Amino acid sequence: MIEEVVEIEILEPWEKLHELEAEGNLEAVSEFVDSLSAEDQRRCLSRLSNVDQADLLSRFSVELAADIMESLPEVQAAGILENLEPEVAADIVEALPDDIGADILQEMSANDSAAVLGELDDADEADHLRELTSYDWDTAGGLMSSEYLTVTTDYTTGNVIRDLNQHAEDDGDREIQYVYAVEPSGKLAGVLRLRDLVVKKATTPVQNVMIPEPAFVNVNDNFESLKNVFEEHAYLAMPVLNDSGSLVGVVTRKAVREATVDHQTEDYLHSSGIVGGEELRSMPMFTRSRRRLAWLAPNIVLNLIAASIIAMYQDTLQAVIALAVFLPIISDMSGCSGNQAVAVSIRELTLGVIRPTEFLRIVWKEGILGIINGAVLGLILGTIAFVWKDNIYLGLVVGGALLLNTILSVLLGGMVPLLLKRFKIDPALAAGPILTTCTDMCGFFLVLSLASTLLSKLG
Amino acid sequence: MIEEVVEIEILEPWEKLHELEAEGNLEAVSEFVDSLSAEDQRRCLSRLSNVDQADLLSRFSVELAADIMESLPEVQAAGILENLEPEVAADIVEALPDDIGADILQEMSANDSAAVLGELDDADEADHLRELTSYDWDTAGGLMSSEYLTVTTDYTTGNVIRDLNQHAEDDGDREIQYVYAVEPSGKLAGVLRLRDLVVKKATTPVQNVMIPEPAFVNVNDNFESLKNVFEEHAYLAMPVLNDSGSLVGVVTRKAVREATVDHQTEDYLHSSGIVGGEELRSMPMFTRSRRRLAWLAPNIVLNLIAASIIAMYQDTLQAVIALAVFLPIISDMSGCSGNQAVAVSIRELTLGVIRPTEFLRIVWKEGILGIINGAVLGLILGTIAFVWKDNIYLGLVVGGALLLNTILSVLLGGMVPLLLKRFKIDPALAAGPILTTCTDMCGFFLVLSLASTLLSKLG
Repeated sequence: MIEEVVEIEILEPWEKLHELEAEGNLEAVSEFVDSLSAEDQRRCLSRLSNVDQADLLSRFSVELAADIMESLPEVQAAGILENLEPEVAADIVEALPDDIGADILQEMSANDSAAVLGELDDADEADHLRELTSYDWDTAGGLMSSEYLTVTTDYTTGNVIRDLNQHAEDDGDREIQYVYAVEPSGKLAGVLRLRDLVVKKATTPVQNVMIPEPAFVNVNDNFESLKNVFEEHAYLAMPVLNDSGSLVGVVTRKAVREATVDHQTEDYLHSSGIVGGEELRSMPMFTRSRRRLAWLAPNIVLNLIAASIIAMYQDTLQAVIALAVFLPIISDMSGCSGNQAVAVSIRELTLGVIRPTEFLRIVWKEGILGIINGAVLGLILGTIAFVWKDNIYLGLVVGGALLLNTILSVLLGGMVPLLLKRFKIDPALAAGPILTTCTDMCGFFLVLSLASTLLSKLG
Repeated sequence: MIEEVVEIEILEPWEKLHELEAEGNLEAVSEFVDSLSAEDQRRCLSRLSNVDQADLLSRFSVELAADIMESLPEVQAAGILENLEPEVAADIVEALPDDIGADILQEMSANDSAAVLGELDDADEADHLRELTSYDWDTAGGLMSSEYLTVTTDYTTGNVIRDLNQHAEDDGDREIQYVYAVEPSGKLAGVLRLRDLVVKKATTPVQNVMIPEPAFVNVNDNFESLKNVFEEHAYLAMPVLNDSGSLVGVVTRKAVREATVDHQTEDYLHSSGIVGGEELRSMPMFTRSRRRLAWLAPNIVLNLIAASIIAMYQDTLQAVIALAVFLPIISDMSGCSGNQAVAVSIRELTLGVIRPTEFLRIVWKEGILGIINGAVLGLILGTIAFVWKDNIYLGLVVGGALLLNTILSVLLGGMVPLLLKRFKIDPALAAGPILTTCTDMCGFFLVLSLASTLLSKLG
């Protein structure tokens, strides 16, 4: 372990940061952090406690602090804001793009986020952010941005281009894809594409070049429907309307794709037992421990239920102690086979090639595969058991149990995600524990009941 | 199960498809498939064997076939193309965007993809696709698109706008973000942004508005460096240069983000034991079985190694048969704890908040957590063992073993992904089995060796 440490470069960015901080030269610290790549900024901040992070950021310019916030994982940014004075946090939130600010506020505790919103100078902005945080993060309302350009229907293309240039100066490198034409009431009237503006005379009325009755999404549309809309159409962005038809935001293809990444990440974390929201090792120990235990505690109960089967067959086990060697193997191998089927079902659900009602397809496709793989694995394990104890019946019990339990595991593994999906439970979260408990119980039961039947031949 | 089937609507799209096919009305089939959403097209195609899929597609127009290919998962599209006559497959590939065509060709067997490339009418296009398929899918070369507009440096902005309009008509809704200005030698000279074209006089030379010496990536740049580049800069696309500085493609922020989704998916599938490439249940049974066994077979060996510990302590187990109930529980709970630490490490590596060399940080952050969670879990399980057999020593053995093994599991789980990363092995793929084997071995050893020491008190 000592060798590892020596391999690290002499002065890591966070060591340099500590050094500059120790010198008390705030300007140098600020300049140094600004010069780091986003990755090094993240790494530096992660080396500090949330309190130290907050302390450091509060001494930077609001722009630099906001820049850093944007490059941090949301959960980390939220942790830092919670440790800042609400008025300092509010300044930083104001400097962030709305959608990112809202995402970070959503990760904060309700009290802290309310305190920050209360300190915003601009009451309209506060109301707007409050509204954004009221939507689930993966709905149209949660993903929409308020950074778009609207013009009224009485504009000419020349006016629009003038506004665009103005906007370009304000907003640097953010690209505008469409301009939205609204009626004075706020109702969406049409959409203008940039290239349509370029080719027409400057005096052309917007009404003549806009796409009237454009496609839109509702502010409450969920993630699945947004994904489908962007898959069906080539649009780079879609206007978001509220129930009365007013334009309230724009959801971009980019935002939907980023939400897809977040969903995939969540699936992975959930299936690994990180279930209380993302964990980073810079978070407080108590939070990390508590969240992990929230997953482990139900699992220990499920494990006890499964193991109770063994307790019921203690006499058989006592008579043929070799079985105790094979119980964990059959439990683990069945779990592996079942998890493969779970992953394929979750993948097929995500891709939309299977519906949550198609159980017969699973029975057919996984059943045959279970027979083949179960036979191969059962033959391997059965042969090993037979050779080890020179008892063909032990081989038959162990191999037969693995064959049957593999079939059961892939069937169950294939079907559980569909069932959970129907009941609106996240398959990545719950499929694993349910599956393992069932396959363990059945595996233990198969081995031990088969052995009980053949007890006289196994002795 | 029967009830589930009845719930399905009377005529699913694929049933309708079968009906139309049976009537032999090809035009109606073609129109019907065209009218389906991408999701229903995928679902319909998945209901057919690869051979039937190929048969159906070969009778559609090339454009429709290409449209459908684009909406299918790449692995499925590749399977279909392999079953088409190479000249039919070549027509479809020609109608696809280059990057998508190349991705599908990469999923095909080397023979089949060479056959398709050999049948392309346009030899330049074939060479180009051959080059694209030679890059790893997640490098700049693998992700770059050839759909961009170049102009030579002697153009005026007016010429560029004329070209753009031309291009807009050709390419429908695909949006152009930048125009690239190249020297006659092919070397990249500068980049033009759309909005710079709009605001200048039509006679302005391109040289005066372009951004000279623009940022670029090399065709061999890997995924990590692409991700960093797009994170550091706000560009929507970056020019891709070969080693001699010629412009060979454009990699978009969108392509990098999609590759991120693919990486996340791969992580999830790998960690679930789907390791030979994506599996869909429409794939041939033999392929599916073989690929899953490729993961299960090494696992059975690892399991045997772990279980051999139990075999060494058969006498202890025989004397205290109650221990057999707790062995699988300790094995599974340690696996759960370890997997949580694995997921957090993989996540921190992905986010770039930890480096593969920082083992001491893991020891510190996971060690304390392991002590807390191990104490909680050990206390629960130990109490249950004590109460069940009314033997405090059994409780101490079981609880103590779980405490120690939890500490070990989180330490190991936290460090294994870093180690694998250093040796360029995919952590999602290998961390699980390595971890489980080690924690099983140690867990079995801890329980049984502690029990052996206290054997006289446990009887």
